[in-house]
This record gives sequence, structure tokens and C-alpha cells, in this order.
Amino acid sequence: MSFMPPTDSMFLLGENRDHPMHVGGLQLFVPPDGAGPEFVRGLLGAFRQTDHISPLFRKRPGEPIGTRWKVDPTIDYDHHVRHSAVPGPGRIRELLELTSRWHGTLLDRRRPLWEVHVVEGLQDGRVAVYTKVHHAMVDGVSALRLMQRSLSEDPEALDCLPPWSLPARKSSGGSVGFNPLALARSGVGAVSDLTGLVPAGLKIANQILRDGDITLPGAPKTILNGSVGGARRFAAQSWEIERIQRVARSSATTLNDVVLAMVSGALRQYLKEQHALPDQPMSAMVPVSLALRAESAGKEAATGNATGAIIVNLATDREHGATRLEEIAYSSRQAKKILRDLSPTQILALSALQMLPLALTPVPGFVKYTNPPFNVVVSNVPGPKKPMYFNGSRLDGMYPVSIVTDGQALNITLTSRDKYLDFGLIGCRRSVPHLQRLLIHLEDALAELETAWG
Amino acid sequence: MSFMPPTDSMFLLGENRDHPMHVGGLQLFVPPDGAGPEFVRGLLGAFRQTDHISPLFRKRPGEPIGTRWKVDPTIDYDHHVRHSAVPGPGRIRELLELTSRWHGTLLDRRRPLWEVHVVEGLQDGRVAVYTKVHHAMVDGVSALRLMQRSLSEDPEALDCLPPWSLPARKSSGGSVGFNPLALARSGVGAVSDLTGLVPAGLKIANQILRDGDITLPGAPKTILNGSVGGARRFAAQSWEIERIQRVARSSATTLNDVVLAMVSGALRQYLKEQHALPDQPMSAMVPVSLALRAESAGKEAATGNATGAIIVNLATDREHGATRLEEIAYSSRQAKKILRDLSPTQILALSALQMLPLALTPVPGFVKYTNPPFNVVVSNVPGPKKPMYFNGSRLDGMYPVSIVTDGQALNITLTSRDKYLDFGLIGCRRSVPHLQRLLIHLEDALAELETAWG
Repeated sequence: MSFMPPTDSMFLLGENRDHPMHVGGLQLFVPPDGAGPEFVRGLLGAFRQTDHISPLFRKRPGEPIGTRWKVDPTIDYDHHVRHSAVPGPGRIRELLELTSRWHGTLLDRRRPLWEVHVVEGLQDGRVAVYTKVHHAMVDGVSALRLMQRSLSEDPEALDCLPPWSLPARKSSGGSVGFNPLALARSGVGAVSDLTGLVPAGLKIANQILRDGDITLPGAPKTILNGSVGGARRFAAQSWEIERIQRVARSSATTLNDVVLAMVSGALRQYLKEQHALPDQPMSAMVPVSLALRAESAGKEAATGNATGAIIVNLATDREHGATRLEEIAYSSRQAKKILRDLSPTQILALSALQMLPLALTPVPGFVKYTNPPFNVVVSNVPGPKKPMYFNGSRLDGMYPVSIVTDGQALNITLTSRDKYLDFGLIGCRRSVPHLQRLLIHLEDALAELETAWG
Repeated sequence: MSFMPPTDSMFLLGENRDHPMHVGGLQLFVPPDGAGPEFVRGLLGAFRQTDHISPLFRKRPGEPIGTRWKVDPTIDYDHHVRHSAVPGPGRIRELLELTSRWHGTLLDRRRPLWEVHVVEGLQDGRVAVYTKVHHAMVDGVSALRLMQRSLSEDPEALDCLPPWSLPARKSSGGSVGFNPLALARSGVGAVSDLTGLVPAGLKIANQILRDGDITLPGAPKTILNGSVGGARRFAAQSWEIERIQRVARSSATTLNDVVLAMVSGALRQYLKEQHALPDQPMSAMVPVSLALRAESAGKEAATGNATGAIIVNLATDREHGATRLEEIAYSSRQAKKILRDLSPTQILALSALQMLPLALTPVPGFVKYTNPPFNVVVSNVPGPKKPMYFNGSRLDGMYPVSIVTDGQALNITLTSRDKYLDFGLIGCRRSVPHLQRLLIHLEDALAELETAWG
């Protein structure tokens, strides 16, 4: 039993059936050569080994909800580690449909707040793993890091442990057991209670991002910025990093600029199809990593990075991809320049924006009366730079599945893996119809940039 | 848009993540001879035909929740009719595990309150259909009747329609469209607002069932009568009616008495294994059908039956199956005798007990301080007497999946089908561990009775 900090409890108290507050990941694995039909059973066996379950994955909310954590001595493995199958014909399309369903249902609060599906039945022989963890337990970035830590660079290694069985990290020092919560919130380690910073963060963000050197137009209201229901639609696809890098080099922009230009082109095309493209340019909120200056940020924070956020003009009002990329790169450079000049306090306040889902929806109905601060969240989380394996199975996709909220019905999170960028798009099934078409438009947008800068 | 009666809204307002208020059914079908791998696609196609969707299945709660129904002009078929697959090795066990998961998640309130899974991948070639409907929309008995109406006695008939596409019933008279809600609550048709009757019903039930001819001991508190979480465990199995009838004939009891004796023996054995068998005999609440006397019950009710309820002593304190059956039959006869002498008002009040889930949990924490009025609900819903088909596929199982609540962590509902009784056992995954063992014990209890009365 331990006290639950507001940074955890706000995600429990703010959750309801229309607004699940869990993050997820969809991984694809290629079984080793010669793996037979028993392969999935073996993977399930490895996932259900009971030698060690880290305390984080035995934690559940005590009553009343939001006041404390309890740590169960053991877990109901059949509940947490689930065996599932893709229906015929077993394409990625059917897998994405299943993922959409799983991500739209609430976790059981009487148990530790996580679920994993080991999924067979893909026609190409790959095996999928969908993982779902409550944001009160661990944030999206830390969840991805945990998944990464469970993998090995060595295709021969057969002693890989699933994320919930990993031993304590050496770097966690004197604390009892492995504590990814500390890791998760390393950016805000110096602040014991972040909640009070959320309004300050928004205020500072507005001030510095709008009153600074650049004048961003207020974000227009779009179909992506209404209230959301509980059902989800998930889409995912990988792009070669080299294709994106080549455009970035030719155009003297960054990889992230090109990613935003893909998103911009895709949103423009998608909203045109829906007869819903606003005249004003749309904007994206992009989390960025910021180095904290040690001298004034306190001892603990000195060792970490803070996560800040910039708001980038997506220039969706411009017809040509090359023009959009130019405007995006300019807007992004200006915003980062301002961030670099911030004081540590301002940076920490900005980090509070990481608490996005709740920070932006303090009042029910809020989104009906004001313009959104931005139109979409686009988040790029660094992943492994080399091919990775789990007990000989090669990781062939690692798609983040994030959170949507009232006012932000679409979230695009991507992660790098080996030579690829894996995009995960999660949307409210009602407000973002035909979400999967964005995948086609992302490719078209990249192709247009390649033609312009090829 | 239409006003929502309290009989509907109480199931929406009383629902939360630990207490989903939907009912379900798991059907098994044997594909026709020569059906190929495209069979499931065809079934999905038949289920997703869009010519006609009955208004009931386009109804969704308007805001604020509990005040009104809205009727959508169309539905998102991919959301409501889902294609799913059983993972390997494709036994009934894996199907039941999937059903447990599906029954533990909440329906999306922004859409009509139903979901159907068409399930492939069973190793025996059968195809399963899991249906889930909110109790605010239709009750369990009516849901089963709707499923039954979508089937045909003719194995050659290929024009079967799924429940949501059935045309209006001729018997529904002047009302607009088909209205199973009226059908659903035929027993209480004369009463416009049943809510007020719930406390009266409980009071009368207590009075007539306890102060009458028989003295029932108060139900002991068992592990089945605590608070419940949201996760479920479902088990299902069919028994030949002839086996049960033979025992009933030999022992001069009824089929329902023998069913209750099976439940009694199974619970006794199960609770012994859990070291949780109470010294006092347990009791069951059993819904029964009652004829309303026309003269005083009002015009509308004169044509219908009311659903009452009796509380039957399960005699779980007795060691021998034959003794338990004798006591159950006696208790049941006495309770029915009393019911037959009731006035129509008393019957209607008793019918309010049908509103069980909420009637018994008016105050959070209620179950912690009082003894339960009974230990378990055992409900027998009449089904088709002949083999039934859906577009040539033979119905080979129709297992009800009911609701559990705080204080009633296990529900056993069965339905007759052709020569079988199909048992569906739903329980809280936390309070009723190893629920599936009850299936073995049900069989053992029947075998013991067969030995005694064979």
C-alpha cells in the first residue's frame, strides 16, 4: 500500500467509458526459421512465466479510487496475458480492427492495470503482440522503453524476459525494486506535485509560443476537435527512415519536419475528402525533449531531460507539399529557438503539457465553446537503432497506440525501429471516419515531397 | 427521439465498469454439408445486410443519459457485427475464454447498445455467434426470443434474417414498427412505472415466502454474495433433457426440481473445494411464469403472463443427492402453492423482482452488512422444441449469458433447445474462481441422481 501521487490519480479520476486513459503498443514479430505451429504456445509460455513479476505490474488502485496503490502478491495470468487470433483472411487490416476494439475497452480496476494479447492467425506467419497499460501506471514513452528493454540485439539470445518480468534497473539506485515510474517522469523529477503546474504550463506555452517571434494563427476548429466516444479506430504503417531522411537532406529540413509535412499533406487530403478542410492553417502539438540546466533546476532534475512541447504550423492551407514543408520547418525552428531560451521553471511548466489529456479538458463541454489550442498531437518516440529480437523472433513493427480525448480525436505517435519509422494513428471511431485512409495520404504526401526534393 | 421509461433508464444509470448491464447469448451452428471456408464470410454478409434494421437496433441513449432514446437513421455495421476468431487449438474452452472477455466490457453508449461476434476457428468446424444487448434495450428473455425468431425449422430455408432485421410482428398491433420492449415486459404491461414496485415486491416476497407455510432459513452469506469486479468468467454446457426428465419421472419431481438439484450438488461440491461451504442450506431465486387473472389486473395485463419469483431451499447442507432433490421439490411446491393464491397486485409486485440487478443493490456496500435474500439466481427460459436452422446451418447450442451484480456473483441461466438443456454460467472472475469446475460438478450431481433414481 502506498500513497498515489496526483500525477497518477488524475488519470484514474479523469477516466470514463468515453475516455479510456490507457496507452498501448502493437508489435509484430517474425518467428525464427523453422518455427512450427507450437511457436505461439511457446511465446505465451515465456510471457506467463511466473518466476518474477515486477511490483509495477502487480500494482492496482486501492479504494477509494485515486488515493493509494496496492501491490498484489500474485496476478491472474490468464486475465493479463491473453491468447487471441486474427479472423480470416488474416491480413493486417483484420489485426488493426482487433486492436481498435481492444483499445476501446476499459481495464479492470480490481486488478493491475495492464493486458497483453498474443495474436496468431496472420496469413504472413508473423505473430502480433498488443500491450495495453494504464497511463496512471506508466506513460506512453516509458511503456515503449519497457517493451524495448525486453528485447535483445542478439538473435540467438533465448533468455529474453517480458516487460513485466524485467529485473530492477541498476540505475534505479537505492530504491526497492525496479521503478519505471521514476523513469517515466524523469523530466519532472524535481517537482513532487505537477498538477498545479498544468494551468501555468498552458499559460506560459501560450505566451511564449504565440507572443514570441512568430505569430501563429489560432488553431481552427475541425472535425478532429470535437467530443469523442469510447470506440476507437487504429491504423498503422511503417516507412523507411532513409526515404524521409533523403527529403530532409535535400530540403535542408529535419526528419521531424518531413514527418510533420507528411501529416500535414495527409490531413489536408483527408479533410478535403470529408469536405471539412478549414480555410485557416491547422497546427500540431509536438512533444520535444529539452535539456534541463543543472544549476537552477535542482539536484534530481539535473540528470534528466524535460519533455516540453512546441506548437507547429502545419500550413494545411497551402496547396503544394514543398511549400507546406518550408512553412513547417520555419515554424518549428522558431518555436525551438524560443524553447532554448526558457528558464528551467518555464521548461518544467511546459512539461506539464505532457499531462495533455486532462489539462485540455478541465470542464465537460469545454471543447464546444473554444477553439482548440492545436488540431492534432504528433509525437515521435525514439526506438531501437538496430534489429531487435525476443527469444529469436525478429521485431518487425512497433506501433504506438496512444490516447484521444475530447477536443483531440486523433493522435499520431510514431517510433523509430532499425531502418523504419512505425506510425500508429488512433482516433475516435465516430469523429474520425475512414481513419485508415490517412495511411494512403501519408504515403502520397511523402511521394509528393520526394518528387519535389528528389 | 422518445421519452425513456424508468424501467429502461435504471439499467443505464445503475451501470458502471464493475457492473455492466448487458445480457448475451452464445450460439453454436453446424454449417451445412459441403460448406467451404467462405461460409463465415457468407454468414457475415447475411448479418450485415442493410435492407432493413429494426428501430430497436438503431436506438441509442440521448443526452443526458437516462432521459430519452434517439433512433439513428443508420448504423456502423463494422462496429456492431464483428468478425472474430478462436485461437488455437480451437476448443470450446478457448471460445468460452473469449466470451468471458467480451461479456466483461461495456457497450459504447454513443451507438445503439448491441454487438455481435461471428466467430470462426473452432476445430470441430462449428461457427459461434456471441450476441450482447443492453438490458435497457431488451431483457434477457426477450433477447433469447428474438434470436429464436430469426431461426427457421426448415433446413432448406435460405431467407433467414438476423434479429436486428426482423420485420414488425403482426401481434404488435397498431404500434409503429416491431417493439420487443413491449414483448419484453409483457408481464408488467399494465404498470407504466415499475420502479416504485421494487421495494414493495421485495417486501411482499419476504412476507409470503417466509411467513407462509414453509419456514425458509435466511440465506447464508457465501463467496457468491460479495461485491463484484468487471471481469467475467463464462462456462457453458448442454445436457440431454431426456436424462433429466427420467430422474424427474422416477422421483415424482419436475424437470426444474432436478435442474435445481444439479445446481445444488454442483455448488456443494464447488464450495467444498473452495473450503467455503456454509453450514446453513443455500437458496436459489427462480423466476416463474404466472397467469394473471383478467378480472382485476386490467385490460392489457389480461392477455399476458407475469414473471414472478420463488425462493427455493437448495438443501446444500444435505450429503445425498436424493435427499437434496426431495427437499428442493418440497420447497418449490410450497412456494408455488403460495404464489397461486396471490392477488394480481401481489403478483405484479413480485414481478418487480425481475428488476433484480438493481433492486438488490440500492446502496453501495449494501452486501457487506446484510445477509443475501438468496444465494444464486437459476433461470430457465423456454426455447425451441425442434431443431432450428439459420440459412441451412443447424443450431447446436444456445447458451444464455446473464448479469452478475454485487451480492450475486454467479448467475445460472439455461434454455431448452430441441432435445437439450443449454446451461450458461456467468460469474465475477474474482469472486468465483475456477467457475468452469461447476460444469464437472453439474454432471456429477446429475449422475448421482441417476444412480439413486435410475
